[in-house]
Amino acid sequence: MLTVNYVGERDVAIRKGLQTPPGPGEVQIAVAYTGLCGTDLHILQGHMDGRVRRPLVLGHEMSGTVAEVGPEVDGWSVGDPVTVMPLTWDMTCPACQAGNFHVCQNLELIGIDSPGALQERLNVPDRTLLALPPELRLDHAALTEPTAVAVHDVSRGQVQAGERVVVIGGGPIGVLIASVVRDVGAEVTVIEIDPQRRTTIGNLGFRTLDPRNTDQAEAIQDWTHGAGADVVFEVSGAGAAVLASTELVKVRGGIVVVAIHPVPREVDLHAVFRRELTIIGARVYQRSDFEAAVDLLRRGAIPADALITKVVPLTETSAAFTELAAGRAMKILVRSSFEG
Amino acid sequence: MLTVNYVGERDVAIRKGLQTPPGPGEVQIAVAYTGLCGTDLHILQGHMDGRVRRPLVLGHEMSGTVAEVGPEVDGWSVGDPVTVMPLTWDMTCPACQAGNFHVCQNLELIGIDSPGALQERLNVPDRTLLALPPELRLDHAALTEPTAVAVHDVSRGQVQAGERVVVIGGGPIGVLIASVVRDVGAEVTVIEIDPQRRTTIGNLGFRTLDPRNTDQAEAIQDWTHGAGADVVFEVSGAGAAVLASTELVKVRGGIVVVAIHPVPREVDLHAVFRRELTIIGARVYQRSDFEAAVDLLRRGAIPADALITKVVPLTETSAAFTELAAGRAMKILVRSSFEG
Repeated sequence: MLTVNYVGERDVAIRKGLQTPPGPGEVQIAVAYTGLCGTDLHILQGHMDGRVRRPLVLGHEMSGTVAEVGPEVDGWSVGDPVTVMPLTWDMTCPACQAGNFHVCQNLELIGIDSPGALQERLNVPDRTLLALPPELRLDHAALTEPTAVAVHDVSRGQVQAGERVVVIGGGPIGVLIASVVRDVGAEVTVIEIDPQRRTTIGNLGFRTLDPRNTDQAEAIQDWTHGAGADVVFEVSGAGAAVLASTELVKVRGGIVVVAIHPVPREVDLHAVFRRELTIIGARVYQRSDFEAAVDLLRRGAIPADALITKVVPLTETSAAFTELAAGRAMKILVRSSFEG
Repeated sequence: MLTVNYVGERDVAIRKGLQTPPGPGEVQIAVAYTGLCGTDLHILQGHMDGRVRRPLVLGHEMSGTVAEVGPEVDGWSVGDPVTVMPLTWDMTCPACQAGNFHVCQNLELIGIDSPGALQERLNVPDRTLLALPPELRLDHAALTEPTAVAVHDVSRGQVQAGERVVVIGGGPIGVLIASVVRDVGAEVTVIEIDPQRRTTIGNLGFRTLDPRNTDQAEAIQDWTHGAGADVVFEVSGAGAAVLASTELVKVRGGIVVVAIHPVPREVDLHAVFRRELTIIGARVYQRSDFEAAVDLLRRGAIPADALITKVVPLTETSAAFTELAAGRAMKILVRSSFEG
């Protein structure tokens, strides 16, 4: 079968891979779709070379069907539609012992620390599987993982119905957070510099704001009648957004750090003190977030078609990454349905 | 009567002040002791010239007795020992409307935004008063305000019995936080660069650590068996301490921002994300914190005698500030018991 491998040097290589049978406790998935993600771009750009072993089969956002059930596995049958929660924890570190498996001190991700879904078949431990409802399309279901990220972020931010929320950064995760916030019953303003993304987001019914030609602090003060936003999600990864975030949020409000900030950022700690703000880290998801994500997608609460810019065959993955890196796409899915 | 006034130019002036009777709803206090505080130093050094009107009678940490009861005041009698919660809120801003009076968007403090306790008599609204138990010495009672700060900080950090807590910065507020944490039943390590302060703190029974000759991250990892501290209090105001704090705290732990950081500080937001940390602003106190502070002082849970470096007459306030600014004292109290 074909596999898409990060080989270093900012490139991926399509290679023939061995298809091994599922081991004890494992299920083999016939991968249908794999979403390409900002983390994959970080890997491709070499930012995570200290962590990933090369060659690495990429892909941690996936949907598919059960192709084969390994020994000592109950409850799954060939043909079942599934998605994968791609986390592996060690069960022994202090974080795991405190019950926080998803932030295990030695957390590993399928598709980052072990081979991922950009291949035809993938063996995974059965505990990583979630069943998909039959009415959920498999292309939409490939959005389960990033939707679970958004569910987790919104949960960490404790967003309540009726609140006013700001999302800084209108990429796929920003739009997913906005969608989950709307489903909770809160209102959203998305701050985004790219005009094309603002149009897409506006068409989805969200308020948008261009920080380059608007005084964003004043605009958010006006919108919230002088209080500030209840919760701000920092999804842009930009230093300027971090500095602005403490101006946008209300007294005792929360700022959720969703984006990867590869270097330390300046934070207005005097505002954090003076207004008793809370800055909250949010990473990946727990199983309940994944279950909620499947349900949101099933109910049509996620604008899946608007988010999926295109679907490409596995052989065109390299070009798709180039397009993503240039900011010319929201989400690109790779279809794995080709000959082994 | 004599009053101590901030007059700009890094100095205070002793002036004769008018002693007016208490107005409706006010109580006149015969001030016994006033503590000098880091915020007073900030004012003296001109950092708050944009806020304070000069001349300003300083002093927001005080104890005394009721000297006169104004019209429309019930429940107070001449001679009652009291302390003052020196906050004034506007009741109309969004923060007040949400019930967060102590972080009112237009919060004012007696001794910063209106005349304070560094004088013989002080009129305050009766709602700011707290009764002191007769067995609590008035010099100790002057520590109620900073103790209430510490109670509020520990409450914001949600410290639980059995936890391991790091306090960065062993000045008066750091020692008070350590004392409140110990009263909750948690263990404390205080990180402090000054050897004399480390000795004082060690003599109070707290673990101490010199960040200049110890790998503090390694030391805290060892102390917490690889987990990291449950809660870190940043009381030093130093940029380096902020950067270090994210290394000292456990996965899903909290960092409480207690110190004033006059400029934005670099924060390792990737650690905040990766380990799902929470950074929590904590400012002043609520009435329940003040009540708890009085009780802690009454029970002897606060090492008041060790914290009070000296007591000086009002006429020596300027020299006392010089001593404080040089780091040669913990807490200096000013005694107001002299002729009007």
